[in-house]
Amino acid sequence: MPPTPEDLARALRAGDRRALARAITLVESTRPDHREAADRLLRACLPAAGGAFRLAVSGPPGAGKSTLIETLGLMLVERGTRLAVLAVDPSSSVSGGSILGDKTRMGELVRHEHAYVRPTPAGTTLGGVARSTRDSIVLCEAHGAEVVIVETVGVGQSETAVSGMTDLFLLVASPAGGDDLQGIKRGIMELAVGEYRTALRLLQPRHPELPPLVTAVSARTGAGMAELWDELAARRRALASGGALARLRAQQARGWMWDEVRAEVLALLRGPRLADLTADLERRVAEGTLPPRAAAGEVVNALARQEAGGGEGA
Amino acid sequence: MPPTPEDLARALRAGDRRALARAITLVESTRPDHREAADRLLRACLPAAGGAFRLAVSGPPGAGKSTLIETLGLMLVERGTRLAVLAVDPSSSVSGGSILGDKTRMGELVRHEHAYVRPTPAGTTLGGVARSTRDSIVLCEAHGAEVVIVETVGVGQSETAVSGMTDLFLLVASPAGGDDLQGIKRGIMELAVGEYRTALRLLQPRHPELPPLVTAVSARTGAGMAELWDELAARRRALASGGALARLRAQQARGWMWDEVRAEVLALLRGPRLADLTADLERRVAEGTLPPRAAAGEVVNALARQEAGGGEGA
Repeated sequence: MPPTPEDLARALRAGDRRALARAITLVESTRPDHREAADRLLRACLPAAGGAFRLAVSGPPGAGKSTLIETLGLMLVERGTRLAVLAVDPSSSVSGGSILGDKTRMGELVRHEHAYVRPTPAGTTLGGVARSTRDSIVLCEAHGAEVVIVETVGVGQSETAVSGMTDLFLLVASPAGGDDLQGIKRGIMELAVGEYRTALRLLQPRHPELPPLVTAVSARTGAGMAELWDELAARRRALASGGALARLRAQQARGWMWDEVRAEVLALLRGPRLADLTADLERRVAEGTLPPRAAAGEVVNALARQEAGGGEGA
Repeated sequence: MPPTPEDLARALRAGDRRALARAITLVESTRPDHREAADRLLRACLPAAGGAFRLAVSGPPGAGKSTLIETLGLMLVERGTRLAVLAVDPSSSVSGGSILGDKTRMGELVRHEHAYVRPTPAGTTLGGVARSTRDSIVLCEAHGAEVVIVETVGVGQSETAVSGMTDLFLLVASPAGGDDLQGIKRGIMELAVGEYRTALRLLQPRHPELPPLVTAVSARTGAGMAELWDELAARRRALASGGALARLRAQQARGWMWDEVRAEVLALLRGPRLADLTADLERRVAEGTLPPRAAAGEVVNALARQEAGGGEGA
């Protein structure tokens, strides 16, 4: 007999790593019959969640995100900090692949007893940020993680998503050319102004008292890594002590609720029960014989009828 | 007794300008009891719509959009072309203001018998593009307009919206400095690369065979204006003859339908009937006592119950 969601919650809260892995698999599942179990699991984990420093690490492919996460992560776990990393796994584009197969990627960190590294197949996510990533953060926290790092590939929308589930946002960019400090800063600034303007726009209003900071580090040599962590930790403490963190978390939770509402409504609209109706309405609208607003009214009415009739699979 | 929507449609299709003005006011109305009348009006106008060249004119405030529209518009109406302009009215931030009060803005064009200029109060729109602008285009076409110009202030989202309701997109930018051709082109390019990259991204995939063209004109002296129109008209003809226009229009109509579905669902979610429930759920989610996904499920169920119970105002 499989464990109940409450059993699973108890096991992962007691520190069972296999239970954590199983729990994340459950919240990642898109099977409708897993949904209720996942909700029960999350309810049982919520009281133990919320305590970790949630850090987003973003940047274009090849910028050195995983090298930086491994160096930073090893530094943390060697100090006794319990760490979870929710990482994009570029080696797997569909479910089934595993970061463990790629020995060169966070290989040391993966084997450390204080680290839990969970790969997300790149193909199922938006730059590594799945709809389930927020749930996975909750599970890692209930498991005891003090720091949760969410790795994402910088592709615009994923930054918006990851920014809505983390406390601070670390952008990794490789220098455009040259390796002197000035050259590195210029390279980062060039990227930040262009490709990452969206991310900076999100970050600036979020913590007006903590304007974005640009710094140069080397994950290979370790230069600047301790200082980087000190700066990140200081910023996190400033947020927590001023009450800004609690406000941010509350706002993120509300945003998450509405994201889920939108996703559910969209799933109903795209679902098999409405497919014939919407296809017919789309055809008439495209032909110009039905006003789009009138068609929309029919869709919304049908949505309500479907829901009222129960939501079980078709 | 007020005219029926069908009477109104007949009058505006016969060329009655006051009927057109009244019809646009009806589709702009947010009163729930006007909705059904607006739908009937649009159904009666659709068969006569779709024939115009729909042109978006966008750019930052002060770039010279209305000067350009007036010069271009006068050129067209003096050739006998019937023109409608749906314009942002910066002099009015709430309903009630009128472009007619601002004698310096498209003053000549407004008085021409072949031109119909409809101001939209800037405050009620997204850069001048209201939810009703698409309906207004249909009404202007049924009234006989051969060219419909939609003016919008370039603010990102409004460009996405206006791009979804027009055939071609004209971006107006003033030169950054200097008045020689090279300086003007540079200025436009600088703006295009930065502020307007979003717009160009939308345009490039839309008409891959017609890459964006940058040209220098003076609406004050008229230099380059005839050539600009010739280029626009040639592009419109190329779209129409290749079948791309029909595909674009069909795709836009489907997009419009889904935009309306989203807007209606959002209105229901934000409506007074769900207000108490969503406030309570938001509070529990923000406190961390309810998983956001479980809260979302309750919202979607309540949405269905509300709809099934009828949609009359609260």
